Amino acid sequence: MTTTLRTAVVIGCGTTGTSVALALTAAGVRVALIDDDQRALTEAVALGAGAAWTPDLPPADLVAVATAPSAVVDVLHSAQSRGLGHVYTDTAGTKDIVCAEAELRGCDLKGYVPGHPLAGPDAAGRDAADAGRFTGRPWVVCPYETTPDWALETVDALIEACGAYRVDLASHVHDRIAAELSHGPHLVAAALATRFADSSEAFLGLAGDGLRDAVRSAAGDPWLWSDVLAHNAGPVADVLDRVAGQLTRAAAILREGDSCAPLELAPTLEEGRRGQTALQQAAERRTVQDAPTGGRV
Amino acid sequence: MTTTLRTAVVIGCGTTGTSVALALTAAGVRVALIDDDQRALTEAVALGAGAAWTPDLPPADLVAVATAPSAVVDVLHSAQSRGLGHVYTDTAGTKDIVCAEAELRGCDLKGYVPGHPLAGPDAAGRDAADAGRFTGRPWVVCPYETTPDWALETVDALIEACGAYRVDLASHVHDRIAAELSHGPHLVAAALATRFADSSEAFLGLAGDGLRDAVRSAAGDPWLWSDVLAHNAGPVADVLDRVAGQLTRAAAILREGDSCAPLELAPTLEEGRRGQTALQQAAERRTVQDAPTGGRV
Repeated sequence: MTTTLRTAVVIGCGTTGTSVALALTAAGVRVALIDDDQRALTEAVALGAGAAWTPDLPPADLVAVATAPSAVVDVLHSAQSRGLGHVYTDTAGTKDIVCAEAELRGCDLKGYVPGHPLAGPDAAGRDAADAGRFTGRPWVVCPYETTPDWALETVDALIEACGAYRVDLASHVHDRIAAELSHGPHLVAAALATRFADSSEAFLGLAGDGLRDAVRSAAGDPWLWSDVLAHNAGPVADVLDRVAGQLTRAAAILREGDSCAPLELAPTLEEGRRGQTALQQAAERRTVQDAPTGGRV
Repeated sequence: MTTTLRTAVVIGCGTTGTSVALALTAAGVRVALIDDDQRALTEAVALGAGAAWTPDLPPADLVAVATAPSAVVDVLHSAQSRGLGHVYTDTAGTKDIVCAEAELRGCDLKGYVPGHPLAGPDAAGRDAADAGRFTGRPWVVCPYETTPDWALETVDALIEACGAYRVDLASHVHDRIAAELSHGPHLVAAALATRFADSSEAFLGLAGDGLRDAVRSAAGDPWLWSDVLAHNAGPVADVLDRVAGQLTRAAAILREGDSCAPLELAPTLEEGRRGQTALQQAAERRTVQDAPTGGRV
């Protein structure tokens, strides 16, 4: 570990915060934990993620705010007011509103680097905190134009400790990408899965792996996800409207009922197969070894 | 193996037909294979699924038609005219139109038991033929009111040889269920995946497991699937319209942009999570050991 990151405070002991704390602790960083929920805090301490924060601690090299998007700026402002650390970052899944509100609220932007480790809420069905949760995965940062190098260096050390690699994006670009790759698909999975909330066991027993795969990400926490979606409203709505339009058109072709229906549906299915293949191949190419240390999208 | 099934003809050496043939051969049934596509036939023979059918063979105990839905009735009628066997079944993923057309076309209904082994096109991403493809899985049959017991007994022997269990359904009930559990979700996955057909590698590299799971079933053959969807048009259109409506409503809530959006979205996400949990639990309860030998839905 570099000398820029020897002590850290992690605020929020959910899956993401505890995973980050575990990775930092494993990398030799002294981690202090904060959570209003005493049970979450106790669990994180028991997992070995760090010690409970105490007021006598000196300012840490890094403070990571790992709360739901709508809470980040309040928590950040309060932490900066109390002088908990020198450099601050967050892990929220939306960035545009968070970045703008931090500025409006008068947070110290020189010491704050907005961030989003991508494995988080996207790691469908895996709720357990894990030091390896972000290993080999992209970690998006959205620096302000005025962000100084010393702040970025500390965040680089955090990303390195988590085994991730840094990808710099403008906050609105991040949010569009997150809507396409994660937020929109999450709501589609949830919509598909609602049908099965009150079904008979005999009916559900006929379901195959394809359906279970398709709805797996709907397992995510509904309150965290509704917060994320509302914080990325425009880009997510665009994705939902596009998919809804495709489904409505396909339904119309089917209801038309003429013999050309297969011919009219096949191009969408073919394009979908190409998209599925492209996603699969991208995953197979990306290994920890060849992960870039930075990237443009 | 019972004495009701010692010889079989499998027409169609795709994944389903070859898998059925492999299971029958493994169970000691002598299997003859037919496919217009010489390459598919040769591959199935090479896999040990059986021998190529020859005109000197006596009528088989069972003929299984394993083609796309739109081809089943033509193939069935021709096979019955040529006297290839005593009992006939098919494996198509839609049943209502197939059952009605077989009647209209004047097929011998006494010797024909419409069927659908459920693992088939739903076994997302696994295209390889496999004798165990239907092990522990439901095998739907849609007998006519006039179907005699001797025909059902032969099909029971087929289902047993494949390690599956029989579920009796009316054809229109099967099609509604298939639309909900498989056909509708397949088109949703394809629609979601179209977005990624021509994306940059850097963009795709940011995708997580949740998205790859969600679109996995879009890997299916576009031509086979468009045939299946068109053969189950009404029920599939109902599913697509319902999901499209949910996505459109969610998009409207998001565009409204008021602070209640998370509150308004959470119930859908919560219901989706319940549905996801129900599907997962149903899969965990269902093992080969406790699979019923029949079922009502």
